[in-house]
Amino acid sequence: MATRWGICGAGRISHDFTVALKTLPAGDHQVVAVAARKLEGAQEFAKKHSISRAYGSYEELARDPDIDVVYIGVIHPYHHSACLLFTNAKKNVLCEKPLAMNSREVQEILASAKKNNVFLMEAVWTRFFPASVEIRRLLAQKELGDVKLVVVEFGAPLTYLVRSTKKELGAGTIIDIGVYCMQFISMVYNGEKPESIKATGICQQGIDETVGVVMKYSNDRLAVFTCSSVLELRNNAIIVGSKGTIKVPETVWSPTTLDVNGKVTQYPLPEPYLPLSYMNGTGMRYEAEEVRQCLLKGLKESAVMSHSDSVLLAGLEDEIRKQVGVVYSQDSK
Amino acid sequence: MATRWGICGAGRISHDFTVALKTLPAGDHQVVAVAARKLEGAQEFAKKHSISRAYGSYEELARDPDIDVVYIGVIHPYHHSACLLFTNAKKNVLCEKPLAMNSREVQEILASAKKNNVFLMEAVWTRFFPASVEIRRLLAQKELGDVKLVVVEFGAPLTYLVRSTKKELGAGTIIDIGVYCMQFISMVYNGEKPESIKATGICQQGIDETVGVVMKYSNDRLAVFTCSSVLELRNNAIIVGSKGTIKVPETVWSPTTLDVNGKVTQYPLPEPYLPLSYMNGTGMRYEAEEVRQCLLKGLKESAVMSHSDSVLLAGLEDEIRKQVGVVYSQDSK
Repeated sequence: MATRWGICGAGRISHDFTVALKTLPAGDHQVVAVAARKLEGAQEFAKKHSISRAYGSYEELARDPDIDVVYIGVIHPYHHSACLLFTNAKKNVLCEKPLAMNSREVQEILASAKKNNVFLMEAVWTRFFPASVEIRRLLAQKELGDVKLVVVEFGAPLTYLVRSTKKELGAGTIIDIGVYCMQFISMVYNGEKPESIKATGICQQGIDETVGVVMKYSNDRLAVFTCSSVLELRNNAIIVGSKGTIKVPETVWSPTTLDVNGKVTQYPLPEPYLPLSYMNGTGMRYEAEEVRQCLLKGLKESAVMSHSDSVLLAGLEDEIRKQVGVVYSQDSK
Repeated sequence: MATRWGICGAGRISHDFTVALKTLPAGDHQVVAVAARKLEGAQEFAKKHSISRAYGSYEELARDPDIDVVYIGVIHPYHHSACLLFTNAKKNVLCEKPLAMNSREVQEILASAKKNNVFLMEAVWTRFFPASVEIRRLLAQKELGDVKLVVVEFGAPLTYLVRSTKKELGAGTIIDIGVYCMQFISMVYNGEKPESIKATGICQQGIDETVGVVMKYSNDRLAVFTCSSVLELRNNAIIVGSKGTIKVPETVWSPTTLDVNGKVTQYPLPEPYLPLSYMNGTGMRYEAEEVRQCLLKGLKESAVMSHSDSVLLAGLEDEIRKQVGVVYSQDSK
């Protein structure tokens, strides 16, 4: 039986997610409804993607009895309220990253998911790419020996997006771009919390634009990352072990190429049926399939991107924001 | 008239420097003598490179009246005493990097050079590569607009070198490998001192192996570097400006390729007449020619790698070592 999706938010990322869903078998994934703050937006989205139901409020989507799981693609500051709305309505949830603006909000979301006994996952799509699965396999089999260092660089000018220029809309590099670097490092270091974090950033009007971070882990392991939402960077990563090296040569947030000790392998993505908002958007198909598999098994969280992984990321984001001097209104609640 | 060189130290780096000198016109550069702690070592070196005079002590080289300038290629802890020996003997000096073990030693060396009115330069050979000259030209002409970020990564396993495993021989990544990252960043940021430095490192037996550093500069500029003397890294760099990007795709310590806004240019090195100890060793020819030009003009320091540049590097090395927890015996003097 198909997993029946509801789409919350009719913006760019919801567009890509819906396109990605349609690269999967129709018998497995079905988009039942879309909701936006304005009915016209939802109707336009529904028409474009041939979705039968369009709602002008998230509450209507929450009340729809034919939805198995809601994809939340609204902007960051609304993740918290949307997650609470859908979990309280007993809907399973896949919510875009960052799961929320800070650790407090993340804890409240996870508590609500637990209380309501629903599945919930932060949509860290990167982790479900075949290239990421291969990285975890290589690490688990100790193909690199002991990992000593991870270096990640991700920067993309996002100032064309209104949400990336206004603090109240959740603008900020750490939670938007940096989260990809942190999730990569945290994946390699198996969900471990670093022993120390040192971060320095450049801010304009209280919004962090470019940030450099060095993190030390147990057993003499190091991680370094650079992220920016105003500069185009190389967007690559390297994992250096005592016996070998994995390089992600480009698009580290959506990896389709791996270089393992000099041997390069491609992991191509399917073509989209409509133009995408963001590069490699069809790669969201893998997280969607993960959600389906978890729901089929009755799981309430994914082992690959678990609740504690979200808690870890939010904690890193909070600490780095603190060091760089970035405060959101949500922090004072 | 040829610049008459004396070579102090008959090890690997002196070998490469001598090979590099011979890629330049014989009418411009001549190696007159070599000195080592043991006469046999000097004689063997002299025979291999067809040098007429071999000395079993540095003092004899200092007394040789036919030497215009001494290249100091001994291990780091001996730079200080060797620099003082030759400057006090009124010899001009090109001394390998790091110029000394800490800022105090660097200041004493520079004071001695000034007092004796001789030329002295830290052998930061990288700065004189044609690719480095081109980087400075592009930056000076504002081809990148305002530079916002520099990221450098340099790591090479050096544990096969005895000097890189023993503290008393000057082992340590920051002063040996990190100095290349720092000189690159300092060159791009025009000799400016950073406003803040945050460094974290992995040490074994008090020797720093792998280090990550984030430095903040005036006018909202950032630099991030990762260095290691135990791990093979990508050894590249990126300079990101408001209007363009320069990439050094590999061998950042001895750059022969530049990628300027996607346009790649090669700067090939001449072939060595003997096998080299280190990759791209013939690239030391450019610093040798800089020394010759400075001497011909009667200069006491190079504008490209000045005394204040050496003071800056030593200060950065001291601060990063302090944060990482690396102390040399020279620090307590």
